[in-house]
Amino acid sequence: MELPIHKIAALVDGEVVGDVDRVIRGVAGFDEAGPDDITFATSPEYRQRIDETGAAAVIVPFEVRQSEKILVRVENPYLALAKVSSLFHGVFQPGAGISQQAWVGDNFRGGKAISVYPGVFIGDDVTLGDRVTLHPGVVVGEGVEMGDDVTVHPNASVLERCRIGSRVLIHAGSVIGSDGFGFASDGNQYHKIPQIGIVQIDDDVEIGACNTIDRATFGRTWIKRGVKTDNLVHIAHNVVVGEDTVLVAQVGISGSVTIGNRAILAGQAGVAQHVTIGHRVTVGGQSGIVKSIPEGQIVSGCPAMPHRLWLKASNIIPKLPDMKKKLNELERRIEKLEKA
Amino acid sequence: MELPIHKIAALVDGEVVGDVDRVIRGVAGFDEAGPDDITFATSPEYRQRIDETGAAAVIVPFEVRQSEKILVRVENPYLALAKVSSLFHGVFQPGAGISQQAWVGDNFRGGKAISVYPGVFIGDDVTLGDRVTLHPGVVVGEGVEMGDDVTVHPNASVLERCRIGSRVLIHAGSVIGSDGFGFASDGNQYHKIPQIGIVQIDDDVEIGACNTIDRATFGRTWIKRGVKTDNLVHIAHNVVVGEDTVLVAQVGISGSVTIGNRAILAGQAGVAQHVTIGHRVTVGGQSGIVKSIPEGQIVSGCPAMPHRLWLKASNIIPKLPDMKKKLNELERRIEKLEKA
Amino acid sequence: MELPIHKIAALVDGEVVGDVDRVIRGVAGFDEAGPDDITFATSPEYRQRIDETGAAAVIVPFEVRQSEKILVRVENPYLALAKVSSLFHGVFQPGAGISQQAWVGDNFRGGKAISVYPGVFIGDDVTLGDRVTLHPGVVVGEGVEMGDDVTVHPNASVLERCRIGSRVLIHAGSVIGSDGFGFASDGNQYHKIPQIGIVQIDDDVEIGACNTIDRATFGRTWIKRGVKTDNLVHIAHNVVVGEDTVLVAQVGISGSVTIGNRAILAGQAGVAQHVTIGHRVTVGGQSGIVKSIPEGQIVSGCPAMPHRLWLKASNIIPKLPDMKKKLNELERRIEKLEKA
Repeated sequence: MELPIHKIAALVDGEVVGDVDRVIRGVAGFDEAGPDDITFATSPEYRQRIDETGAAAVIVPFEVRQSEKILVRVENPYLALAKVSSLFHGVFQPGAGISQQAWVGDNFRGGKAISVYPGVFIGDDVTLGDRVTLHPGVVVGEGVEMGDDVTVHPNASVLERCRIGSRVLIHAGSVIGSDGFGFASDGNQYHKIPQIGIVQIDDDVEIGACNTIDRATFGRTWIKRGVKTDNLVHIAHNVVVGEDTVLVAQVGISGSVTIGNRAILAGQAGVAQHVTIGHRVTVGGQSGIVKSIPEGQIVSGCPAMPHRLWLKASNIIPKLPDMKKKLNELERRIEKLEKA
Repeated sequence: MELPIHKIAALVDGEVVGDVDRVIRGVAGFDEAGPDDITFATSPEYRQRIDETGAAAVIVPFEVRQSEKILVRVENPYLALAKVSSLFHGVFQPGAGISQQAWVGDNFRGGKAISVYPGVFIGDDVTLGDRVTLHPGVVVGEGVEMGDDVTVHPNASVLERCRIGSRVLIHAGSVIGSDGFGFASDGNQYHKIPQIGIVQIDDDVEIGACNTIDRATFGRTWIKRGVKTDNLVHIAHNVVVGEDTVLVAQVGISGSVTIGNRAILAGQAGVAQHVTIGHRVTVGGQSGIVKSIPEGQIVSGCPAMPHRLWLKASNIIPKLPDMKKKLNELERRIEKLEKA
Repeated sequence: MELPIHKIAALVDGEVVGDVDRVIRGVAGFDEAGPDDITFATSPEYRQRIDETGAAAVIVPFEVRQSEKILVRVENPYLALAKVSSLFHGVFQPGAGISQQAWVGDNFRGGKAISVYPGVFIGDDVTLGDRVTLHPGVVVGEGVEMGDDVTVHPNASVLERCRIGSRVLIHAGSVIGSDGFGFASDGNQYHKIPQIGIVQIDDDVEIGACNTIDRATFGRTWIKRGVKTDNLVHIAHNVVVGEDTVLVAQVGISGSVTIGNRAILAGQAGVAQHVTIGHRVTVGGQSGIVKSIPEGQIVSGCPAMPHRLWLKASNIIPKLPDMKKKLNELERRIEKLEKA
């Protein structure tokens, strides 16, 4: 693809400083870019050495005004990066059709331009929308429905009856629709509670690699529109994750938890069962959430507390040995005063 | 399936309040159930609004006495849920035979009514019991033995020589028999210690999705009868997990740990190597176990301590900034008194 | 294989006490070994009961001098274990060729004695070195290059354009080259930032089961020579892991982190983005690293602090309720003194 700078600038609402007609043929990282590329100075470190990139042009925040390089000044360089890089590297689905080395069950309904690679297994009664791509080793259980423009990466499994919206990405090795972890004890042994619900994933969701999302006991585990999960995330049965919520790597969500919209749970955080996390809540990395969190709060720690308090409190932990010593010393001094 | 209420009640030792002959055709969640279904009021919240379910009948604890709905009063509604739901949704294995698109090695011995889906790989010298089901993408290494009624879900791998008992469920993406993490340092580089043992999984075990259970260096990593693991659980080489023990999601067990019977390790807990955890120990979520825990204890925190103490101690963490302030204030007041 | 003791001793720089010509036919664990085996007393517990093993010979540290068994005295029994066990159980790659039930893309270049099992998928433009083994269910994306003596275990995925060195082991279920977790917010929704870089894994690396290693946004995520990762490890985009560094199970490394050579991160530790961890740093289990750590330090806890300080400080946490009580008591006593 070839585009003049002014077209790229228009796409990102940017202002060009320099040759607006310069033709760009690719997008690359700051240190890897060549003379036909455009790159990005998203961090202060890069901004201080803009002239050092090999790129022809650099997308920068408005605060940067001048450079030997062509500048495209924008409000949000990260967002511009997303748009420009998608332009040059947008996934092109060839619509390769269904490989003869894939297994397709009875009563299959597939949309236009789908790609089903060798080694894919599709159970009975599956419906796929247009431009769905199933990579090698993907297993789709019976009765699964997927919308348009879904991509499932290698060796992921989408199990029976789960429903996947449109423009959903599921990365390699993930499991959608494993049994919820439900057992009843008779005081002696555990008896399995059949998990007969489903997982519903709405539009524009991206599921990271090696996630495990359990089906509901009854009803559905529900991942709403725009949710993004990182790798190795666990979501238990009957959980609801609200729109545009972000779950960072290795987060674990226990059964029947409800999370609101636009929340962010940082890496390795854990949430205990039946808890409710409000809209726009931010949870710090490795935090342990055992009580519900009202909307808009920023919490950290274990047990979770307001983030600023956690910063203060956790900084005192290394001082505990000194505090304990001082406490004992004060006690001795008081005893002395009392005896006087 | 169609069953009159009195037959369902007999199965769960329940007492019917209402029409004992009413015919039930399914089991469903409280909010999803229809007029031919039976449902469950397992939580106080549901018990307060029993009349709101669409179900014909509701299984309740004995404390509930009266309702517009037919009631089946039982001692343990969760256990009744397990039994009734299994009745209606018990997995029926069709015994589909071995797909011609599966690969089966030499010297294969298979029991009656087994189901081997397309895309399964079975190495040489494998023995499977009756009614074993291997879903698409499952890999069974050479010399593996499985008992009766085993189900291995898609894209799981059971590697060479591992032994699986009867009535074992292995969920999608799990790996049984990966190499233990064993290296010897020469002070400069690491040298791999071959992991030539196996994993032995006894009867009635359920392994969650994307678990990793490493084979022993020598001998066996041993998962005993009735163990239930949730998703993304890691079990290292030479670990022994006792009967009916429960490992919740994302738990990590280091090498050569021994866990007793009927223990429960909550989500994201970690156990350091060579530790022994006694029978019936309960470990709280995210806890870090670095020392052995005697049987019957309930521990939490990092480092782990008695659970009640952890509740008290962890509630003081947010108060540390105030405590530090007060400590400094008291010191000043003592100095003043001393000078007086 | 059959070897006289003196040959084994020569391999490990050991000193034989007993019959140097005794023929050994295998290596086994202390409690499992038989009369033709050699075994190891690596722990004090085994050293105290050397005569109880069924083995003919025992490899021991120099401090052990005498036994009924033949002894091979060495400086580092673990290292000797690695060498002797590798001798008897070294992986012999048969060079089985490429199964006709594997799918191989266009422009494939493969070295000598490779083994590609049924159910493997190889994309276009893939290059494999000599003696590469791809187990069933492995997916190799287009443009991937691997060196010599690489083994990829079942159902692992190595995605497009990633580069794998020589003598690399990738265990089952792992994903190399999933998309980095990169999104730009427009204040309302998230926009995906295409992840167009690669993962580069250098020589002599071992990757555990169900790892997820994300490709770089631009450039490469780089796992350097000799790195060993345990199971369920997450490595985000643009991370660099230095030579001979060890990442224990369930460790999570956020984006753009740099880790030096010969570092050790114990199980379930987490590292926040953009942090630098120096050479030879040791990080304790479950620690949370939010700031860079200079080389050579041993840190633990959350937030991380020097390990010895963490041991002291964390041992005070269970005493916090008592400290709080004493603080209040001292205050009362001071008030009394002040009033006097």
